Amino acid sequence: MLQVVGCKDLDTLTQNALPQGIALGRDLNLTEPLDEYQLMERVQELAKQNKVWRSFIGMGYYNCHVPHPILRNLFENPGWYTQYTPYQPEIAQGRLQSLFNYQTMIADMTGLDVANASLLDEGTAAAEALAMCSRSNKRKVFLVSDKLHPQTTACVETRCSAMGLKVKIVDFSTVTEVEKDISAVLFQYPDTHGSVQNFKNLIDKTHAAGALVCCATDLMALTMMKSPGEIGADVAVGNSQRFGVPLGYGGPHAAFFACKNNLVRIMPGRMVGVSRDVDGKDAYRLALQTREQHIRRDKATSNICTAQALLANMAAMYAVYHGPVGLQKIAQRIHHSTVVCAKGLESGGHVVRNSQFFDTLKIQPSLPVQDIKARAEAQEINLRYFPDGDIGISIDETVREKDINDIFAIFNVDVTAEQVSQRPDILSSSLEQSEWKRTSSYLTQPVFNSHHSETQIMRYMKSLENKDISLVHSMIALGSCTMKLNSATEMLPSSMPEFGNIHPFAPVSQVGGYHQMFKELEADLCDITGYDNISFQSNSGAQGEYSGLRAIKAYLDSIDQKQRNVCLIPVSAHGTNPASAQMAGFMVEPLNTDKAGSIDLAQLKAKAEKYKDRLACLMITYPSTYGVFEEKIVEICDVIHQRGGQVYMDGANMNAQVALCRPGDFGSDVSHLNLHKTFCIPHGGGGPGMGPIGVKKHLAPFLPTHPVIDPLNGQSSQSFGVVSAAPFGSPLILPISWSYIKMMGARGLKEATQVAILSANYMSRILEPHYKILFTNQSGWVAHEFIIDVKDFKRTANIEAVDIAKRLMDYGFHAPTMSFPVAGSLMIEPTESEDKDEMDRLCEALIRIRHEIHQIEKGVMDPVRNPLKMSPHTQEQIINSTWDRPYSRELAAFPAPFVRPETKMWPRVGRIDDIYGDRNLVCTCPPMESYTNKDSDSLDGVAAARA
Amino acid sequence: MLQVVGCKDLDTLTQNALPQGIALGRDLNLTEPLDEYQLMERVQELAKQNKVWRSFIGMGYYNCHVPHPILRNLFENPGWYTQYTPYQPEIAQGRLQSLFNYQTMIADMTGLDVANASLLDEGTAAAEALAMCSRSNKRKVFLVSDKLHPQTTACVETRCSAMGLKVKIVDFSTVTEVEKDISAVLFQYPDTHGSVQNFKNLIDKTHAAGALVCCATDLMALTMMKSPGEIGADVAVGNSQRFGVPLGYGGPHAAFFACKNNLVRIMPGRMVGVSRDVDGKDAYRLALQTREQHIRRDKATSNICTAQALLANMAAMYAVYHGPVGLQKIAQRIHHSTVVCAKGLESGGHVVRNSQFFDTLKIQPSLPVQDIKARAEAQEINLRYFPDGDIGISIDETVREKDINDIFAIFNVDVTAEQVSQRPDILSSSLEQSEWKRTSSYLTQPVFNSHHSETQIMRYMKSLENKDISLVHSMIALGSCTMKLNSATEMLPSSMPEFGNIHPFAPVSQVGGYHQMFKELEADLCDITGYDNISFQSNSGAQGEYSGLRAIKAYLDSIDQKQRNVCLIPVSAHGTNPASAQMAGFMVEPLNTDKAGSIDLAQLKAKAEKYKDRLACLMITYPSTYGVFEEKIVEICDVIHQRGGQVYMDGANMNAQVALCRPGDFGSDVSHLNLHKTFCIPHGGGGPGMGPIGVKKHLAPFLPTHPVIDPLNGQSSQSFGVVSAAPFGSPLILPISWSYIKMMGARGLKEATQVAILSANYMSRILEPHYKILFTNQSGWVAHEFIIDVKDFKRTANIEAVDIAKRLMDYGFHAPTMSFPVAGSLMIEPTESEDKDEMDRLCEALIRIRHEIHQIEKGVMDPVRNPLKMSPHTQEQIINSTWDRPYSRELAAFPAPFVRPETKMWPRVGRIDDIYGDRNLVCTCPPMESYTNKDSDSLDGVAAARA
Repeated sequence: MLQVVGCKDLDTLTQNALPQGIALGRDLNLTEPLDEYQLMERVQELAKQNKVWRSFIGMGYYNCHVPHPILRNLFENPGWYTQYTPYQPEIAQGRLQSLFNYQTMIADMTGLDVANASLLDEGTAAAEALAMCSRSNKRKVFLVSDKLHPQTTACVETRCSAMGLKVKIVDFSTVTEVEKDISAVLFQYPDTHGSVQNFKNLIDKTHAAGALVCCATDLMALTMMKSPGEIGADVAVGNSQRFGVPLGYGGPHAAFFACKNNLVRIMPGRMVGVSRDVDGKDAYRLALQTREQHIRRDKATSNICTAQALLANMAAMYAVYHGPVGLQKIAQRIHHSTVVCAKGLESGGHVVRNSQFFDTLKIQPSLPVQDIKARAEAQEINLRYFPDGDIGISIDETVREKDINDIFAIFNVDVTAEQVSQRPDILSSSLEQSEWKRTSSYLTQPVFNSHHSETQIMRYMKSLENKDISLVHSMIALGSCTMKLNSATEMLPSSMPEFGNIHPFAPVSQVGGYHQMFKELEADLCDITGYDNISFQSNSGAQGEYSGLRAIKAYLDSIDQKQRNVCLIPVSAHGTNPASAQMAGFMVEPLNTDKAGSIDLAQLKAKAEKYKDRLACLMITYPSTYGVFEEKIVEICDVIHQRGGQVYMDGANMNAQVALCRPGDFGSDVSHLNLHKTFCIPHGGGGPGMGPIGVKKHLAPFLPTHPVIDPLNGQSSQSFGVVSAAPFGSPLILPISWSYIKMMGARGLKEATQVAILSANYMSRILEPHYKILFTNQSGWVAHEFIIDVKDFKRTANIEAVDIAKRLMDYGFHAPTMSFPVAGSLMIEPTESEDKDEMDRLCEALIRIRHEIHQIEKGVMDPVRNPLKMSPHTQEQIINSTWDRPYSRELAAFPAPFVRPETKMWPRVGRIDDIYGDRNLVCTCPPMESYTNKDSDSLDGVAAARA
Repeated sequence: MLQVVGCKDLDTLTQNALPQGIALGRDLNLTEPLDEYQLMERVQELAKQNKVWRSFIGMGYYNCHVPHPILRNLFENPGWYTQYTPYQPEIAQGRLQSLFNYQTMIADMTGLDVANASLLDEGTAAAEALAMCSRSNKRKVFLVSDKLHPQTTACVETRCSAMGLKVKIVDFSTVTEVEKDISAVLFQYPDTHGSVQNFKNLIDKTHAAGALVCCATDLMALTMMKSPGEIGADVAVGNSQRFGVPLGYGGPHAAFFACKNNLVRIMPGRMVGVSRDVDGKDAYRLALQTREQHIRRDKATSNICTAQALLANMAAMYAVYHGPVGLQKIAQRIHHSTVVCAKGLESGGHVVRNSQFFDTLKIQPSLPVQDIKARAEAQEINLRYFPDGDIGISIDETVREKDINDIFAIFNVDVTAEQVSQRPDILSSSLEQSEWKRTSSYLTQPVFNSHHSETQIMRYMKSLENKDISLVHSMIALGSCTMKLNSATEMLPSSMPEFGNIHPFAPVSQVGGYHQMFKELEADLCDITGYDNISFQSNSGAQGEYSGLRAIKAYLDSIDQKQRNVCLIPVSAHGTNPASAQMAGFMVEPLNTDKAGSIDLAQLKAKAEKYKDRLACLMITYPSTYGVFEEKIVEICDVIHQRGGQVYMDGANMNAQVALCRPGDFGSDVSHLNLHKTFCIPHGGGGPGMGPIGVKKHLAPFLPTHPVIDPLNGQSSQSFGVVSAAPFGSPLILPISWSYIKMMGARGLKEATQVAILSANYMSRILEPHYKILFTNQSGWVAHEFIIDVKDFKRTANIEAVDIAKRLMDYGFHAPTMSFPVAGSLMIEPTESEDKDEMDRLCEALIRIRHEIHQIEKGVMDPVRNPLKMSPHTQEQIINSTWDRPYSRELAAFPAPFVRPETKMWPRVGRIDDIYGDRNLVCTCPPMESYTNKDSDSLDGVAAARA
């Protein structure tokens, strides 16, 4: 490969690709690399420092049983966790179906019309709900219950504060009027104290005032309680963690978001919809993408990019496995245990504050809290201790009789659960006897009633897995998304109970292993980036951008530069950049790029000068989104700093920099790091991700805080606020990045970066005779990715980028990034994980496709009925007696020698019609009645519903 | 389903199917069932009672690093572990390819021509080697080295003693002549003391005497040492455990067996060979099956049925992953560490007894052994303590500098590994400087040189997995093989280091968890079977048969009935029965069955009477191999007992009995239990299995013993001998069966059995209008399986059972058991794990096939060119412009509505020509030079080699 690119060694290559002056010039200061087995020993040591106490804390996070078949066959299966976001739906029907199940499940449980395919956490979902309401009715004031989980309130307040939205925290039991300026009300049902309130009055008044009703809620409770939709809510949000996803010290979990039909087109987040393929067959794909940041930039409905697909899939499978009857049994067991707990505690003289509850009690103890706490700790039990001296207890599906007895003992109550449960009136205070009892059905669809044995769920998961292309099949050369190896060793710790079964609000003293890991990972990432501090709270890249920008704003405010609110962003930037900037309260000012793909320095200077008093920051990606190390990065940063601005460097392309150069050295003040790109967290089919931010020292005091567990250890009171529901984002997946760095060491990381750059340059040289390579640096080198321009083919052969993308599926490849950042292009990033043979195969596929385009250009192939326009080819099309296309079946299905019947990966539907799907939006399974026969995961019912 | 079979409930069904008088009539006495999470807590408790000390014991078992991608994607992947033995090769090309890699690897490493696809363990492999030599040259005396691992010697002696073969244990350094009556010599290289001896003289003399040379050896050593083939051995055996398979307290591991070409047709065990399919394409399948027990019964080359496929695949993948260069590096590190260890100990005044060694030293300590042992134990280190006062140390790939330093400390040697390794002459005593240095190349084939990154090996494993049908795709209704759910929960413990990383000869005091589990499993199995004791040593069903028969013989001998050697076996019995009986030294006397499939009672009585003085035992399967509970089982047992014989009940069909009736109650004296059938150990694509035996009290003193760790705790000195290399067989998979019983409890097990019987009766009723059901009891009921007779179709439509089997592949199904126990039949066992929908699909497939047969009978379909005769259909055949068959592509590929393109499981080759393959035997990859291009796991090279 070095020969092809004409470099004698990797260091020479690096010198060619990297601008003078920014090279690190030394090895990183990381510890000596560990081998895979030494690493696991360290992991075991850290695991031992995490104490897995029983948790009754609740607050939106509950112990649960991860069904072992789901654990093994989904969570631990690279066929599920290495998939990319399903932007190429013809080879992603498996996880699209599962996400569609998730949406159906959420819509059913919440009693609302539509749901999206997950958001990051309950706190941000609630903030997104209010923002959506404001977009809907153009009002800017919210009434928010004082009985939300504290982290939800904090997220809502932080988000709203930057968008000019006003949050009034109120006790809804005292609210008698809803003013006309109110955009929406937000309450929690059941509330954070565990109580179930009647909101009918409030809801009526809210609607009468033209405002919307948002409801934070709990999926498990909703199996027994009237749904938000039934009580009149317009929007419902919550955490689906307790549906079979480990606590993981706070995440990753899938938050849900559901709303009424009239709000669907402004709903944030990804949504799976049904459309039809070229043969008229129903097919899943991401719907209504025109709402999203990659299209609408600062006008988008939200900056959300990464979702929590893997976790949403786990939750969906949990519902598929248990079904409505199983779920209700689980919920009843939880609820009845809680009733027994309440009655028992009452009989011991304690006061239960809740008149009605599902699984959570607020107890006014009749004994000193400290004594109770001491006994609880002796039993290794965590309870919730309220500031007012009350004690909270939340029961979950893992409850056993012993737990209730232990609680009684802790509260010095001399009864047993068995005794209490035998009292004659015990269930008179059950939800089932109350006005809140749910009578509507849910999850009646076949998929939720067909896979209740392990044999069935295993086959169902496998059948979905096998529909999708993932890294277990072939390289996924997604420019700017860095689909690299997610090694088994890196993944192992996330399955360990010592990392999985920790409540996010467990006392820090119990979580020594995690905190040691945070410390080491922070030190390593600082060394890698040249920054001084890391915040792990932001649980996606977009969250990281948002946090970084908010930190900048808070810093500028603190130095009396409140007026600074202009954010310069190149037009080539990721769509999340302007969307995040807008949400963080900045005015976005675009910057052009020159023909070489670099920032137009003259314009930059002019705009920086023009806005010099209002300039807040520049957001820049490095190497640029064009895949080139811009020569003038130092000068660019200087221009901004000289005018009082800060530099935000988007970390999406860190894979080209690690151990070669450091943003903190060449002028950036803050970056987010997509741990799910550069640092090996798998993409999970569209999440989870992690977007911690690195900052220079002056920004450190402004990093995110948290209302329950302060991640800054009380070292700062200048934080801009709270960006995620959990204090440390999604800790369960941090061991992945930590392990990667520990195993690679300084030299390993450097070589990885060099090989990533070599691979991109190698592929670009191989493809150069066949395709126009768009951008290189002055010496002709690209960084870790490159863009091929396919615009001209539209004119010469009526072929567009999408045709090439779909034709690649016939070759068994997932398309590279399409038409970003340049329309009519493909951006290819091979990463260091792919071997030469695999890259050669992708090149061969592209070269053969180029040849097919030639055939069209020369008139040898039909301009419409050719294998590109008619791709991807399904078995149904090809295995058909009436094949009438002017090219052969063999060319369609086996277009290269390496595409062999023995290993062929088939697209499971033909080309999908996006417009049709958006016009005829179907985002949930229709109810049971629409199906003609029970035995069906097919979409028959969808067609029936639509007809 | 009950409606279809016409029973009001499961109990009524049971009463109908089961004969009067044998019903248990009460629940089993098992502990209350645990749920999956309670079970895992118990597992954790037991795990804690196993102490994972560092082991330097060696003796054929070594610590190793299981590569995590292999652990996760193969060992823990139901796509690999739930496969059946690849008797249907068109849907088993993936694991056949992997087993072929295994054979190639073994043949290469041993320098011999051919290898089989694994045997059970090194001890039995050595015994099989001698038996094969005796078959080859008809001689009956062996010279066996006194420096074999003791368990190898014990297995050899036990086996030979029953076959009239004589073993002479000798010190080969003193042997000057090889007599003409010697069949073979057997030595170990390197020997159990770690020494490498020169056997040239011996080998020359052996060959001159017309005898054969067998060599037990070590794969890792052979990466550096001249191979057995190069020094002149005819046969090589050993354990491939250290190639990436956990110790597991003794197993399961794959033993290897390689020999010269002239012995291939009498080689024991399964062998994968290359043949060609109907299109002339190379394809893998099991070769030379006519040698095997299911064909040749008591004339077979061996009684081996189950192999260790899953473990052989792990070892093969380990070699694929590391490749020859990687393996050699690992071996060099081991060897150099051993050299350093030796030199260091010598410098401390200890005597190293080995002049040349690879990884094992025998040390004459200069200090009291007890002091050394005390220091070792303080460090939690296990060494080998020889009876002569010497100490053994074996180094393996997990070695670290600290280990060597700790050994020095234990031996009170005041040097460090680093100091020793810097001595100038340190490598002068390396193997690499010796006459034994290996100069021949190995593993030069592309497959061993293409998958060295995790990305590559993951994709390679996935591509193989996806070629094969397993339980993750559809039901595998194998009569007499009970392919039931292998639940994730049951599988989890086998991945735990506390079960995986235990040496089989670790002191019992360190293995409390395992022994507690053995105790509980023994108690539960005794309760289930009505026996009094269980021996876990036999690590396959055939081993169990052998052990049980040997125990019977030992018992008879002990009561002065030495003359009793006649074993009655019904002609319908599994082929292993007569093969095992023959090996155990019995004379096999066949018994006929009547038209209803029951034993011909009159004949039984007559033969029992005829042989009444020589009658040793009856081997019987219950319910019978015809799938029926014979009415007269009690009487049958009585007939035998009255004439002084014992009853051996084959446990293959226990799944129909559990919790309903017990062999110990109705007259059987001993049974083996196929834990891999009834008790949920997965089939692993052809192993591992476990065949523990249950016995009535009078047989208990005769159960297997062991020369290193006595499984009988010294309670008996009447043992017939040693049947497996490890004292407790394959303990790593016992948690599976233990978990199953613990979770099911008494009622769960009963319901499982009842549902298994219901399912078989349901399917037989559905199929009855279409196929002839062969056997039922007097009231028309089958047990847990049933046979459909397809013999007539040969006459009416030229259709044979094999055509139906192959056509089923087009429907996505693995064929039921074919032509056993009745020629021209299919035996269907649905098990309790399959739901009605899945059974209905299999029925529909069979009914549609019956309809196709009708079409042929009626002349509508061509008698030759029809979808049955031409099945299975491959993509290559169907996606071909020149389709010229008289039926449609659609009928070929999608013959039923439930066979959909989205989920179609394709046969990867067309129908395979077995005879061609056996005539043109190719059982290993040809060397590198035969390949035309490097990028190929295809079989191009095979064709080249053959040409």
